[in-house]
Amino acid sequence: MQHFDSDYMEGAHEKIIERLVQTNREQTPGYGSDMYCESAKEKIKTACKNPDAKVYFLVGGTQTNVTVIDTLLKSYEGVVAAKSGHVATHEAGAIEFGGHKVLELEAQQGKLSAETVKSYIAGYYKDENYEHMVAPGMVYISHPTEYGTLYTKRELEELANVCREYEIPLYLDGARLGYGLAASDTDVDLETLSECCDVYYIGGTKVGALFGEAVVVNHYQECFHRFLSIMKQHGALMAKGRMLGLQFDTLFTDNLYLDIARHAIKMAEKLRNGLEKAGCQVFIDSPTNQQFVVLENKKMKELSEHVSFGFWENYDENHTVVRFATSWATKEEDIDKLLELLA
Amino acid sequence: MQHFDSDYMEGAHEKIIERLVQTNREQTPGYGSDMYCESAKEKIKTACKNPDAKVYFLVGGTQTNVTVIDTLLKSYEGVVAAKSGHVATHEAGAIEFGGHKVLELEAQQGKLSAETVKSYIAGYYKDENYEHMVAPGMVYISHPTEYGTLYTKRELEELANVCREYEIPLYLDGARLGYGLAASDTDVDLETLSECCDVYYIGGTKVGALFGEAVVVNHYQECFHRFLSIMKQHGALMAKGRMLGLQFDTLFTDNLYLDIARHAIKMAEKLRNGLEKAGCQVFIDSPTNQQFVVLENKKMKELSEHVSFGFWENYDENHTVVRFATSWATKEEDIDKLLELLA
Amino acid sequence: MQHFDSDYMEGAHEKIIERLVQTNREQTPGYGSDMYCESAKEKIKTACKNPDAKVYFLVGGTQTNVTVIDTLLKSYEGVVAAKSGHVATHEAGAIEFGGHKVLELEAQQGKLSAETVKSYIAGYYKDENYEHMVAPGMVYISHPTEYGTLYTKRELEELANVCREYEIPLYLDGARLGYGLAASDTDVDLETLSECCDVYYIGGTKVGALFGEAVVVNHYQECFHRFLSIMKQHGALMAKGRMLGLQFDTLFTDNLYLDIARHAIKMAEKLRNGLEKAGCQVFIDSPTNQQFVVLENKKMKELSEHVSFGFWENYDENHTVVRFATSWATKEEDIDKLLELLA
Amino acid sequence: MQHFDSDYMEGAHEKIIERLVQTNREQTPGYGSDMYCESAKEKIKTACKNPDAKVYFLVGGTQTNVTVIDTLLKSYEGVVAAKSGHVATHEAGAIEFGGHKVLELEAQQGKLSAETVKSYIAGYYKDENYEHMVAPGMVYISHPTEYGTLYTKRELEELANVCREYEIPLYLDGARLGYGLAASDTDVDLETLSECCDVYYIGGTKVGALFGEAVVVNHYQECFHRFLSIMKQHGALMAKGRMLGLQFDTLFTDNLYLDIARHAIKMAEKLRNGLEKAGCQVFIDSPTNQQFVVLENKKMKELSEHVSFGFWENYDENHTVVRFATSWATKEEDIDKLLELLA
Repeated sequence: MQHFDSDYMEGAHEKIIERLVQTNREQTPGYGSDMYCESAKEKIKTACKNPDAKVYFLVGGTQTNVTVIDTLLKSYEGVVAAKSGHVATHEAGAIEFGGHKVLELEAQQGKLSAETVKSYIAGYYKDENYEHMVAPGMVYISHPTEYGTLYTKRELEELANVCREYEIPLYLDGARLGYGLAASDTDVDLETLSECCDVYYIGGTKVGALFGEAVVVNHYQECFHRFLSIMKQHGALMAKGRMLGLQFDTLFTDNLYLDIARHAIKMAEKLRNGLEKAGCQVFIDSPTNQQFVVLENKKMKELSEHVSFGFWENYDENHTVVRFATSWATKEEDIDKLLELLA
Repeated sequence: MQHFDSDYMEGAHEKIIERLVQTNREQTPGYGSDMYCESAKEKIKTACKNPDAKVYFLVGGTQTNVTVIDTLLKSYEGVVAAKSGHVATHEAGAIEFGGHKVLELEAQQGKLSAETVKSYIAGYYKDENYEHMVAPGMVYISHPTEYGTLYTKRELEELANVCREYEIPLYLDGARLGYGLAASDTDVDLETLSECCDVYYIGGTKVGALFGEAVVVNHYQECFHRFLSIMKQHGALMAKGRMLGLQFDTLFTDNLYLDIARHAIKMAEKLRNGLEKAGCQVFIDSPTNQQFVVLENKKMKELSEHVSFGFWENYDENHTVVRFATSWATKEEDIDKLLELLA
Repeated sequence: MQHFDSDYMEGAHEKIIERLVQTNREQTPGYGSDMYCESAKEKIKTACKNPDAKVYFLVGGTQTNVTVIDTLLKSYEGVVAAKSGHVATHEAGAIEFGGHKVLELEAQQGKLSAETVKSYIAGYYKDENYEHMVAPGMVYISHPTEYGTLYTKRELEELANVCREYEIPLYLDGARLGYGLAASDTDVDLETLSECCDVYYIGGTKVGALFGEAVVVNHYQECFHRFLSIMKQHGALMAKGRMLGLQFDTLFTDNLYLDIARHAIKMAEKLRNGLEKAGCQVFIDSPTNQQFVVLENKKMKELSEHVSFGFWENYDENHTVVRFATSWATKEEDIDKLLELLA
Repeated sequence: MQHFDSDYMEGAHEKIIERLVQTNREQTPGYGSDMYCESAKEKIKTACKNPDAKVYFLVGGTQTNVTVIDTLLKSYEGVVAAKSGHVATHEAGAIEFGGHKVLELEAQQGKLSAETVKSYIAGYYKDENYEHMVAPGMVYISHPTEYGTLYTKRELEELANVCREYEIPLYLDGARLGYGLAASDTDVDLETLSECCDVYYIGGTKVGALFGEAVVVNHYQECFHRFLSIMKQHGALMAKGRMLGLQFDTLFTDNLYLDIARHAIKMAEKLRNGLEKAGCQVFIDSPTNQQFVVLENKKMKELSEHVSFGFWENYDENHTVVRFATSWATKEEDIDKLLELLA
């Protein structure tokens, strides 16, 4: 059985495991005040080309989204997001548990346009009852999106401009950021994010780590003044914080983060080319590690005896959209076998 | 200047004022444990033809919605509502402040269909990731809706059936309930609500009272076991609770509630006939006290110098949809003057 | 049966009722944007000698405390209060529902000392784990306290100094403020409050109104920028807001608020003198409308057949502390009868 | 420099590291649905002698406390705890963030007595205003406590009886449970916990794991019906859940958990004997891995140049109470060096 269900099915990149082993018996102070966290923060700031950024480490994606959003919003504000955004759909109400509404807007293949956002916020302030409505207090986007798609630099700049006009933060969820940065045709790199996003996070869980997400705060740093307390209050502060530091320090040494992400992209491209050759209909034009294809239900059923993958949505009575996810850990031979089965 | 902005612009019906005056110096215990509350509850139960109902009084509509919803939902559940529902739009995030997501569905002129609800809930439980999503824990409808429209008895029964199938409560927001019950062609009366809705509230603020909403609990009474504490925790427990009892006792004596609502409907019908005669385009076919018409922008501007009304939405470049609300307090002569101005 | 249970057993002062009757059919816009609210705000600002204050009206005491506290605190902060403070004991967890901890300190007869507060906050910041603990974000006091006692001007100044040193607001709960201001020997008036307190509220419910509390914001006004939305989100925004304006406008015309409070004090003093003459032991030296006395259990039982009052606490096996509350509405003859029964 | 600050300064026991290495490239489904979690759950149920228990894995202690407490309490309920309990002091308001009050009772060296709890709950229900107060909805204890002390079997049974009488759950925080179970004179084992506690957790972070806590639910399992969703909503659901399963599977194989805890106890006993010989005053009679001693300030300062430890509290002007924590990872030679320095 081969698994293409998701990008978090294996452990961590070997270099991370190696360092966990090496440092295992060292004694360090807790809660992220250790030297590995310090070192990782410096490397991330260098990679992002923003020496003045603040960097924080959390354990998982939903936890990071909730904690950051609660930190940035005032009590009466909500977070603007695509209807298909992770915070709107698959976080079991974590944002609302924190007291905030997700203001859901229509999106194209997971992407929010600056125009949509601007028109929504402008409409809000023009409404005579705006004080009775949830105020748009920040904008949330994901990159890659839940559909594997990517923003262009231009699109991010336009979103940033809208946010600056209304003086609210632009926050980017980078759970799969590596696979976005490593895509073949993107013009978005970490520096772009530092320029356009007020806050973003670099996903570790899905890109080579056992767990861990690194939040980079470029602006609105004053909101993060007591972030350690806010993390603690959210149950998001790791006692042995160095686990996070060690992993990100490794990922940001010798370009490892991008290198392993590139492997996943290579595997995804191989898969996609093979699928197209096999006559499968590509559902979404995704340049990243998630590939969405339309399969005949009969074929899907046969395939599922040998391979696991994600069910995405019904296409029509006889077809289904399924998702294959590659990752830093995907083996080329597994792609070959999958393509054989589909041929 | 005549005012048709809303149905809460005047004080209370004279009979209510009279009783407040008469009883002013009486001493009663606080927090709704007085004899006026008791009496009002009995009268409401009789009117609703459900002697086993529990009745509770709160001050305003948003407060009632939040407190009831928090009482009925488990922490991981959300409330299914029309995208245009009051809880989804004009409560400034009160539901989310209580920790719950509003699961917004498409509606027709403010009305949720049983089919839409059923398909949504069924889809939720079929989703392989349903545990990562907010569970539909109750259904919220308003009657009349925010568009002045009404459910039929049949439609309520169908919604009730879906809710029973999934074992979740159906809750009806009756902020303007009197105007729904008094409409000319409706087949929905209080007894219908007691049969179909697990919980609903009878609006006082907009139908003759200074303030006050009466919650009728037909089923799920066990959730309300400590409702007084929940009200207190929500800042929704009035010290001089008899103010609420006195008002509802008056409204449910000699059919006052329905009588004054009927007056509002008569005024609305007169207005509507006049508007149609004046060639105005009716925007929504509303049988209740809110009338929506399309006015030329120029005419709207002229009118607004003499009359106040609600802006609803832009119709096209040259036209706007406006709302005129009648109420128990509307004077026939004011309708006449308004129609003159429009002629 | 005579009632001395509490100070919210009657309706409202006759002048308030009169104005409700007079203005009943007037049409005003909703949510506190009417002229009566405006007028009341002006009169309150004049009475408080702070023309730059912001004034807001809410319905009840718990609601006011929660809404103000949520407005002033950051998410990771708590409110410092006496262990016996209303927010710590009798609000059914409303402060916690809003996400904040009540940091309870020892108090003397309901009063927090500046020294206790300062030592607590200083200790907090000296603790090496302070970031793992709830930050003291504001100080809550009540005046009169829950024991009927009063702060002196000097004590309020000292508390204010501590708060200013740590740059956190001092908030005063004035649910019974009138009875404090009207006490015989106090040196605290509204001007004192405007000087010492960053935010306070003037209680209406217990001092002559049907309901209503007026929040006066001297400092930290920037936190109240969107207070209307915060009120709405808390279910605390009254549709017919003029009811609040009308009542406070009346109470702050011709000194009514203080005049009727003085009557309650006169009645309390008469009661107290009589109790002492009858040989009853006064439990707390209260200069306000709440009188606490120690009764033999046998006597208490006899008395309770003719008079209702509040149970406070067991004194010893054979004695109980009870509370008699006078109010603006207490009749002199009722005091006479009570004293007769006790003689 | 030697470190006795806390019991979470190293990584994990070597056997855990070994298995992480061995299994690193295996593919497993996410969110705890893997075979390692299954296996670990079975082993824990066997060790606890309760085959019907439900077992869940979370990442850290505060996260576990908050998530379990939110799951067990109704919205209007609070958690009864010692004033010194972790949930009352060092979780930065996480319990209040979840909407619940911590009802803090006096304790002796961190231990709540059944009598104190019973008297508090009985008093609550006797109070005529109990509906205006936060209802005691569960009891929280820690074992070992924050002072290193332990409950006896008898004391746990008494607490259990009080909880059963009032039909509320008894929950035990076992962040350092291993060190309690391994203490020399305790009569409390896992079976005792399964008999007395409705829910408890077995701490991994401080007892040999990189991170992780195992919640054992004996009763009130119906509250945990949708615990995965509640975990997700709290940001507490790990994507690569097998990390938790693997660690606990290892700890509960061949008695590893107890064995390594016993080592910590041996080290603590050695330390304590040495301290007493050196004439140090033991502050608390702790049978577990935390040892509290009174040091002269001068000596403390000298020591702190060579050894790190926890500051506990001021003893008098010239003395301070400090805490030394041993752990599964403490080396005997480090104890020797510490004692040398103290001699």
